[in-house]
Amino acid sequence: MEGKGLIQVYTGDGKGKTTASIGQAIRAKGHNFKVCFVYFFKNLQDFTYGEVEILKGLGIEVVNFVPQHPHFYKNIPPEGVREKCLKALESIKEIFEKGYHMLILDEILIALRDKFLKEHEILELLDKKPGALEIILTGRGATKKIIHRADLVTEMKKIKHPFHRGVKERRGIEY
Amino acid sequence: MEGKGLIQVYTGDGKGKTTASIGQAIRAKGHNFKVCFVYFFKNLQDFTYGEVEILKGLGIEVVNFVPQHPHFYKNIPPEGVREKCLKALESIKEIFEKGYHMLILDEILIALRDKFLKEHEILELLDKKPGALEIILTGRGATKKIIHRADLVTEMKKIKHPFHRGVKERRGIEY
Repeated sequence: MEGKGLIQVYTGDGKGKTTASIGQAIRAKGHNFKVCFVYFFKNLQDFTYGEVEILKGLGIEVVNFVPQHPHFYKNIPPEGVREKCLKALESIKEIFEKGYHMLILDEILIALRDKFLKEHEILELLDKKPGALEIILTGRGATKKIIHRADLVTEMKKIKHPFHRGVKERRGIEY
Repeated sequence: MEGKGLIQVYTGDGKGKTTASIGQAIRAKGHNFKVCFVYFFKNLQDFTYGEVEILKGLGIEVVNFVPQHPHFYKNIPPEGVREKCLKALESIKEIFEKGYHMLILDEILIALRDKFLKEHEILELLDKKPGALEIILTGRGATKKIIHRADLVTEMKKIKHPFHRGVKERRGIEY
């Protein structure tokens, strides 16, 4: 990536936040940039997300933090989740040192929305971002301050979604 | 893709429409679905979009219709563009017969917005979609009838965009 890396935010209740991040990762990789894709709250061990093996196969680093969200894993104590999120922030600071051009933090904003992370903790993380690193935060729950801090923000707004009509999550589409 | 393929629309003035389509293509490909990615108004001959070689390398069919939009190529007569768009619709009907699971029509809605295609022409195309095919239309300019006809619609809404601050299109990010 030439020049200054920006902070992008994809938020909102519509489909397209994670897939847009995947698209960005692919586009950057196509220009031979060094890309790291961090998943929050997705259990890559137990569940097959279509994109993961392709990302890895292209040489994109895939990292999986806090794979279990208590919404889906009812016996997980919330304190443990906060602890894991804080550890993830520390690991991300280490990732900052590894010379990536692009870093995607998928669903990190869910940690904020669900109060596992505090707003100032994410803002402090962003303050430590290396200047040349493009960083993409996704998830519902971007706050005013996060939006203020970001350079580019898209709200993926649900106009229509078939889950309303009883369509279940579909392989190759939602995962 | 199991079952019925849906019609998805990514519209709005924000960043993320094409990248979300790329992400969908990658995710579907990761489950070994047969994917075709159609670009409208992008000159893949003269310009390097980061994702294109990766899509091709993964076995995703990449098709390029109407590469020159008169907004960027000032000496192109609009009648010729309409003619090329109509030809593209015919070619897409042929693509329908090729057994793809997912077909992306990137920026086709720009053809509608800029009056190179009529609304009823796109609706008629959608009427001919094979039942199992997932189709994704992108571009600003989704009309009420297109939205009504689609199963899933996300508006990528610009909350903040650095072009406002004079940041130019960036390699690995916008292309």
